[in-house]
Formats: sequence, C-alpha cells, structure tokens
Amino acid sequence: MATLYSTQCPSFFAYSPSSSSFSSSNLALLQRVNFSRRFLASKASLKSQPLSSQAPVNTQQHHGAVAAAVTPIENGTSHKQLKAELLSVMSPEESQGEADFEKDENESTVSITVVGASGDLAKKKIFPALFALYYEDCLPKHFTIYGYARSKMTDAELRNMVSKTLTCRIDKRENCSEKMDQFLKRCFYHSGQYDSQENFAGLDKKLKEHEGGRTSNRLFYLSIPPNIFIDAVKCASLSASSGNGWTRVIVEKPFGRDSESSAALTKSLKQYLTEDQIFRIDHYLGKELVENLSVLRFSNLIFEPLWSRQYIRNVQLIFSEDFGTEGRGGYFDHYGIIRDIMQNHLLQILALFAMETPVSLDAEDIRNEKVKVLRSMRPLQLQNMVIGQYKSHTRGGVTYPAYVDDKTVPDGSLTPTFAAAALFIDNARWDGVPFLMKAGKALHNKRAEIRVQFRHVPGNLYNRNIGTDLDRATNELVIRVQPDEAIYLKINNKVPGLGMKLDRSNLNLHYAARYSKEIPDAYERLLLDAIEGERRLFIRSDELDAAWSLFTPVLKELEEKRIIPEYYPYGSRGPVGAHYLAAKYNVRWGDLGTDIDQ
Amino acid sequence: MATLYSTQCPSFFAYSPSSSSFSSSNLALLQRVNFSRRFLASKASLKSQPLSSQAPVNTQQHHGAVAAAVTPIENGTSHKQLKAELLSVMSPEESQGEADFEKDENESTVSITVVGASGDLAKKKIFPALFALYYEDCLPKHFTIYGYARSKMTDAELRNMVSKTLTCRIDKRENCSEKMDQFLKRCFYHSGQYDSQENFAGLDKKLKEHEGGRTSNRLFYLSIPPNIFIDAVKCASLSASSGNGWTRVIVEKPFGRDSESSAALTKSLKQYLTEDQIFRIDHYLGKELVENLSVLRFSNLIFEPLWSRQYIRNVQLIFSEDFGTEGRGGYFDHYGIIRDIMQNHLLQILALFAMETPVSLDAEDIRNEKVKVLRSMRPLQLQNMVIGQYKSHTRGGVTYPAYVDDKTVPDGSLTPTFAAAALFIDNARWDGVPFLMKAGKALHNKRAEIRVQFRHVPGNLYNRNIGTDLDRATNELVIRVQPDEAIYLKINNKVPGLGMKLDRSNLNLHYAARYSKEIPDAYERLLLDAIEGERRLFIRSDELDAAWSLFTPVLKELEEKRIIPEYYPYGSRGPVGAHYLAAKYNVRWGDLGTDIDQ
Repeated sequence: MATLYSTQCPSFFAYSPSSSSFSSSNLALLQRVNFSRRFLASKASLKSQPLSSQAPVNTQQHHGAVAAAVTPIENGTSHKQLKAELLSVMSPEESQGEADFEKDENESTVSITVVGASGDLAKKKIFPALFALYYEDCLPKHFTIYGYARSKMTDAELRNMVSKTLTCRIDKRENCSEKMDQFLKRCFYHSGQYDSQENFAGLDKKLKEHEGGRTSNRLFYLSIPPNIFIDAVKCASLSASSGNGWTRVIVEKPFGRDSESSAALTKSLKQYLTEDQIFRIDHYLGKELVENLSVLRFSNLIFEPLWSRQYIRNVQLIFSEDFGTEGRGGYFDHYGIIRDIMQNHLLQILALFAMETPVSLDAEDIRNEKVKVLRSMRPLQLQNMVIGQYKSHTRGGVTYPAYVDDKTVPDGSLTPTFAAAALFIDNARWDGVPFLMKAGKALHNKRAEIRVQFRHVPGNLYNRNIGTDLDRATNELVIRVQPDEAIYLKINNKVPGLGMKLDRSNLNLHYAARYSKEIPDAYERLLLDAIEGERRLFIRSDELDAAWSLFTPVLKELEEKRIIPEYYPYGSRGPVGAHYLAAKYNVRWGDLGTDIDQ
Repeated sequence: MATLYSTQCPSFFAYSPSSSSFSSSNLALLQRVNFSRRFLASKASLKSQPLSSQAPVNTQQHHGAVAAAVTPIENGTSHKQLKAELLSVMSPEESQGEADFEKDENESTVSITVVGASGDLAKKKIFPALFALYYEDCLPKHFTIYGYARSKMTDAELRNMVSKTLTCRIDKRENCSEKMDQFLKRCFYHSGQYDSQENFAGLDKKLKEHEGGRTSNRLFYLSIPPNIFIDAVKCASLSASSGNGWTRVIVEKPFGRDSESSAALTKSLKQYLTEDQIFRIDHYLGKELVENLSVLRFSNLIFEPLWSRQYIRNVQLIFSEDFGTEGRGGYFDHYGIIRDIMQNHLLQILALFAMETPVSLDAEDIRNEKVKVLRSMRPLQLQNMVIGQYKSHTRGGVTYPAYVDDKTVPDGSLTPTFAAAALFIDNARWDGVPFLMKAGKALHNKRAEIRVQFRHVPGNLYNRNIGTDLDRATNELVIRVQPDEAIYLKINNKVPGLGMKLDRSNLNLHYAARYSKEIPDAYERLLLDAIEGERRLFIRSDELDAAWSLFTPVLKELEEKRIIPEYYPYGSRGPVGAHYLAAKYNVRWGDLGTDIDQ
C-alpha cells in the first residue's frame, strides 16, 4: 500500500484540544494551533467539516489534569469528531477552510524559549530539532525562538553557536542552507539569571515586540539543572507568561530522586503551572519504534491473542551503552543507572507495552491505562535486582577506565552503572510473567530493545527435532528501538533440504531496507507535540508518582545498606549476576545468547 | 541456532517401520532400509539404543492399510521408541552400531525400476532426482537402477540419454562428473511391453543377477499413461516382485477421472498390491514450503491461537502457470485444470493446512487427520465455481494462441484451463471460513502460494489512520511455495516520521537470502521416502476417495450441462468472474491487489 507520507508536516492531532493560561487562572482560552500554509494546502481537506465556521473545539476534562473551565467560543463541534476527520485519509486538494486558517495564522504566534540555551542538550538536540521542524514546515507561520541563559551573547553569537550543530537531517535536501539562514534569522538571544523576575520581564518585553499584537502562545523548554527548575518556572510564570494565549513548559528528567523529592517538585511546579501546562519529557517515548509499539499491538489482529500471560513467558527491556561517564560523572553519580534509565525510559516502555487497550488514542486515555499498569505492579524488591559498576579493563593495548577513575565521580562511589531487575504486574493479564529490565553503561554494545519471549508449544510434535534445549525453540518478538531500527519475529522453520531439521529464522522488518526516509529524532516529535498541545507522549504527574513508588523503596535500601555493586569490565557483557537473576525466573536474556543474529 | 545440516543424507524417519511382500501374502518380512556408510558415520549415533542387536522394529497396524501380519524377528523394540531416538539431535561420533549396519548393508539391495524410462517425466525428473540422491549419499550401498520401456535400447544408450539431463544440482559441487560416471554405471535398461509377464520375467532375471543373493527390495516407478497402469502392475507383481524383501510401486496422477474410475483403479491395483505397497505421489507434497507448513504451524506458539475461524477470515490456495498447453493438450484436455491441479495439489495443501493436530508425525496419524478434513468438507457446488479457458491474445506484436488453437486439443473443447472455487469445511475449527482455490494456465505469472487472511481488528483504535478500506489493513500470512520460496506476514506498521501514518509492511523470510543451500526437488524427497517406506507424503486410498467425492458432482455437472468457460486472454490475470466469486464471500484475492509487494 502506498503511503501518503509527504515532506509536508504530518500531524497526528492536528488540533490542539485545550489549553490553559500560564497563570492559575480558571479561564482557558480555546486556541487552535496555527498551521503553516503549506501544511494546510497539502493535507487538510476537512471534508464534512469545512472550517468555514472557524470551528473551535471543546476540550475534554482530563483525568489527572487540573481542571480548566472551558468556554466554547462559537459552536460545539466536538474534539473527537474533528480529530476523527483529521485522522482520516486526506486528499491533497485545497481545503475550503484554508482562507480561515490563514486569517487565524496571521492572528497568532508561537514563541519558543530555550532556557539554558548554551547547554549541551540545547545545542545538540533542541535547536536542531526546531530547525528540522521548520524545514518540514511544521512550525507555525509566526514563530520566534529565543535562547535564554546567563552568559552574555548577542543574537549573532547565538546564531553562530546554533548554526554549528544544524544539519540537514536528510541527505541531499533541497535549499537546505537557504532554509538554515531563514531559520537563524528567527532565533534571538536574551541574557538573564534563572531566578530573576526582572530578567524574565525583559524577555517578556522582547517577545511582545515579536508577537506584534497577535495572540501570544509561549513554550518554555527548561534545559537547566533541576535545582533551578522552580526558580525559572516561577520567574517565567510571573514575568513572561502569555496574556491571551497558552503557555507551556517542557521539563526534562530528573523529576526528583525519589517519591518525596518528586512530589515536592510537582507541588512546587503546580504553584505556578497547571498540570496541563507541564510537559514532562521522556525522550524514549518519542522514539519511532516506541511510538510504533501501540500500532503493532492494536492494529494487527495476529498479536491480539498473544498479548498476555497465556502466551508470553517473559518480556525483556534492554538498554545498553558502549561508553562510560567519560568525565561527565558528576550528575550521573548523584542519580545512578536505575534513576537515569530504568525508572523512566524502561518503565515507560513497559507501561505502554503492558497496558490494556485504551478507550481512544487520546492522551488522557492512554495515560490512564499506563497509570493502571504502574499501579498494578509490585514495588521492586532488592532480591529481584542486580547492580553493577564497571571497572577498568585493558584490551588490545588500550586501557579503559573504571567508573571511579572518572575524576568527576567521588572516590569509592557505589553508584550503579548497571542494573538488572525483575518486575511483576499483578493483574489478570500479566500475573506471573516476569518483566526483566537491564540497563548499563560501558557494555559491549549500544542497544535499546524490547524482547518478548513466548511460551513453549504445548505437546510440540517437533520437540525431538529441536533437541534438548526447548527454551531455544520458543518464538521471540524483538523490537529494536535503536540503533538500526527493526522488528523481527523468531520462528522455527524447516531447514530446506531432505530430512527434517529445524532452525530459528527471523520474519524480519528492517527499517533501513523498508523505508528510505530517515527517522526523525525523538525531540522533533516531542517538540511538535508540545506546540500542538498533544500530551500523549508526556508524563502526567500521577504516572510519575506511581513510577517512583515502584523504585523508591529499593533505591533507599541500596543506599542505606551500602550494597556493593558487582564489578564488570568496561566493554564486557555486564555482571554475570544478571544471568542468575534471569535464571531465578526461568528466563534467558535474549540479547546474550549464542545466536548469530541476536 | 546453528543447524546440523550437512551434505550427508539426512533423513526424517531413518527407519522403515514396515513392509509387505509384493504378492498379497500375509507375511511381511521386516526389513531395515540400508544406509550408506557415510550417512551412518556422520549421523547415526544411537545413544541409548545402540543397534548391536540389529534391532528390528514392530510395525504398527495402519488405519486404512491392508493389514499385514507382522512377526517381530528378534525383540520388541518399538518403532516409536527407535524413531524417537533417531529424531533426536545426533552427534557426529561414530556409532557403536555401525558395524552392524554395514553387515546389514552388505546383505540387502534396492532395485529401482523406472517403467516408462524414455518418457519426459523420467528424463526430466526421476533420473535427475535419483542422481541427486546418489550424490548426497542417500541411496543404499547396493542399488541398481533399471529403465524399462518398449523401445529397443542398450544400457549405453540409456546412459547416454539419462546423462543429458543430469546436472549437479548445486553449483560448484566437487567431483560431480566423477559421481555421474559412477551413477551411470549403475543404470541399466530392459526393453519390454508393459503388459507382458514374459518381459517382466526377463527383468526379474536381470535384477536377481544384480542382487547377487542379497535380500531383494524393489521399487517400481510407473511413469506411464494411466490406461496401462494395471497391466504393468499386474506383470510386475506376478513376474518381478521381490521374493524376500519389500516391493513398492510409485504411481503418479491421474488416479482416475472421478469417484467411480478412481475406485475402479484402486480396486484393480489392490488385486496385485496391498495399500502399503502403493505410493501415490503428489509432487506438491514434496515441495519444501508445503513440508514446512506443518512445522510452522505446530512448532511455533504464535500461530497456535490464530489457526481457526476465530482469527482467520479466509484461506487462499493459488496456482498459476504463465504458459498454456503448447502442443501437449491431448492429455490435459481429457482432464482439465480442476482434475489436474485442484483436486490433488491444492486440495492436499488445504488438508495439511486445515487438519487438526495429529497424534504424531507418523504417516498414518497425519493421513488420518487429512482424511477427517476432507470428509468434513461440503462437496463443491457449481455456484461456488468459476471456470475459464484462455483465448488468443496479441501483445507487443506477438500473438499468443488460444487453448483451442493447440492442435492436440479437440475443436470446440470446453475443458477449463482456469478454475476458481470456494470450499468450506464444516467442522468446529473452520465453520464459515471460505477456502478459495484458484488454478490456471496461460496467466500473467507463475506462482504457487498459500495466503491466509486474518480478520479485522475488533474495535481498532487505528481505523481512522487506515482509511476507508479496512480490508486492506488486515494481516496476511503468505507462504510462497514457488518460485522464489518465501514466508511473509503482512503487518500494519507506523510509517517512520512525524505524524501517524500507517502502512502494511512485511515481516519477511526470504529463502534465497536466508539459506544458501539449494532447495531439493520434490521428487528427491519423495523417492527417498518411498525407498525408506515413509508414507507421510503419499496419498492413501481413503484420502483419494474423499478428494474425489468433493469434486465429482461438480465435474459431472460441468460436463453434462456443457458449461461454457469464461474466456480470458493468454497472459492475463484470468477471468474477472474469480473476483465476483471471491466478493460473494467477502474475500479479496491476495495476489491480485494493488500492493507493490504482492
């Protein structure tokens, strides 16, 4: 089936269903997100609902969100109905409603402020993602990007800094350097302290100039250390929130170190922001194959009967990096691998994997189901956990450092750089199925994947052909999130030839071979969603609470008992303890077997 | 998982469980099939059951077979037990029992007589398959091959004729021409009439000379027209059957033209042969992916819950050839495509596909289940059938002939060269699921495949993303039997990129990419099985009866009513009537869509 994918910006929820003002005001202005003209021209033929009425939409009251009273402006076209039409296959014809959109476009503007603009994340991820969105015509017609940081810098200096990391993501793109120039002209810089209302007021004044009287929508991306989160939120809220449009704040992990600190952070944030305005980013949720997980599950009948304890023996969530902290251990040492990877990235994937079918694909419906999974889980216990830390290793004449050799790491640190854990979901679907997680730094490879191992075939006629280790003959579904995205299903197959020899072969979907288009960076998707007010891939505060509840007890126990990690050589396959943990639950790690194709 | 596949002859059932003498004697001599020495040395380490006792095996009484009283010669080691050990993974160590095998090998011999040696099938398929088996060390140490036909020919002339079609199947094989010479030295010729007991007695005499007093096992391959089957069987039986070993006869379709003629043929055959001695070949059952069908189904848990009316919407069995009768329409016109392809090849695949799990992989257990499927089916009705005949077509300046332009075809023939049919299995598993068959000559491509179309996803969250034709978004499992063997599973997948666009992608297993080894010809497998007494892939008489019961009424009706076929152009996609037949059951042919990858 040919796809309708084009270079114009596609959008899942083209409409932003709701918003609330930056202050804790109860009146939220309903506001449609602006579309670039090209996007509209190519995609948005709204057949049965031409936008001649400039139909605004009702918001739905979101569970877990701070309620914001909603005033339908003109008529009652429901959000669901409108979305449904946008989701249907669109014709490339020009839409009746285009003129209206255009009018609207001219009336509103989006300002994106990157707070902490000179940091690594901003330079490597945020600005390049914004440029990619610009290139793909996904940013509204009127937008302005501001860098905000303490250092003194001119607009030109910011542009120079930003330009160094911009790339034309997809090879041989047309007019790329021209597009870059246009993009950079819309980037500005404002120097200020993160805790200065005055400095933020200065920013506000500049933003207003750019907005030129149009409806003002403002997105703040907080790319700053957690200890100054609250100050910055406070100042932005009080001095630089939008007066007549929406204001949203993207925050990155860490969201605290445990249940208490996370709750305190949420409480502080909510002094200045409603839940609706907080976009807690987990960039793993923006990854292509994590997004695809729900598609695979819910749009393919063949997976439907398989997705439960009846057929699935265990699920493995695996993350590995092939490098250590490399001089950047200061932050890491304070958190460790469990907080850095497991409690967020891997747990989020687990929740998406294991959730019941949501009522719809709406953010709140999905997040409701994820929370239910998290709340059905037993808090992790120490005996279901293995921690490790990498030690120095010499190979081929090169000596790789131990974690504690990193000068930014305190001497004698016991912080885990590796952890494996067995988790359980005590609900009807998953009772007794081990969910194994494994995350580590300085391992032998770089990988993130989901492995679903199926049960033995009952009464298998071919057991004799398979040999003695029946575990080797079970089906396995592998979703490789990175690198080199792929989905494959291991099946038993007859080796061609006379006789009856079986092997395991893969039913394969290798993305690079199937799709010529480059896969967008997770940040692009997430930034676009935040601009569009789509919260599906952001973490709600009750999800965050539930996630911390699972990990906080064991984290405390590890620290209080000063549990010594199992030391593993840099570049190795990690502590052997992980195998024993798996064996305890009759599981074999799918990524550490002897198959030629893992 | 590395496979143990080697160039030495592998074997599913290394033991021949039973045999009966060529005459209708009640006493069967139990006889082990000989192994080549290399095969033994490399494969047969019979751990817990070393063959120091030359253990003969009990036969099991086969349902549907003419009972042959069995006398265990030495001890009661069960067939199942022995087979189980042979099926387990074998070590390459030399077996304790090898010396015994060797002794046994020297004591017995197999003679293979190709009756109708100068025919096309013999030259193109049978002799080359025998050579391939010889090359792979699958033939016993002592074997002799005889060509038998009416024409006068010397041994040298036969060898010359045979040598022209021998190829070293697999590229760059070692010592191929040397092996050919060795093989040809064991090929001989005997000229005789097919209905002459005297001529067969002459053959018997020559065979005895070759056997040199060893136990005599004789395989007759009847590659002759059906009208002389019985004569040849009678003469061979009375004048050339083995006195002290087994005698088996391979017969090829047609097995009659309808229930009556088939029953008459069976009855005649059984005057001279027991059911156990008759090997009715359906070469489609020897094809690699048909063999693999049961492996896929019964050794992969993921397919287990899917294999029923609950998940499968319809099953399609498709056969097409891209050429017509091309001057060889005489035989075909008497039978037509329904008898030539559907009633045997496609129906056999259907039965294998749809059968319940057999008790074991034993021939009788599998054939029992296949018969049950056939007996659960409704006889085909005329309104569930479309017939076609190709007509002349000019394309690119070339005119392709109509079927009736073939000089060997009677003028005004109504014989179908194309047929499509909807069949139903009225049992608990398949009630209401259409099994669609389609077979035709002179179509646009050459293909044989099984397509399993799954149902819609109930309550599909992604319906809106899929578009208006939900039928296009169902999963489909395709098993491509030929050419270019492959298995693929069509799944809905998110198209990489921002937004949420779905497409259908394949989880793929392409044999040429996965397996470097060339796939053996179906005849090799079947000849080897016949030599080893493995009946799994041959058709039992009750299966044949059940198959004819399904097709005989409609065949009679077509002929009595002189139904005019729908004419389709040579090289086209066949009659459009096939689409309407499919539509009647809410089915869409999987091979005639608009997908880029059908």
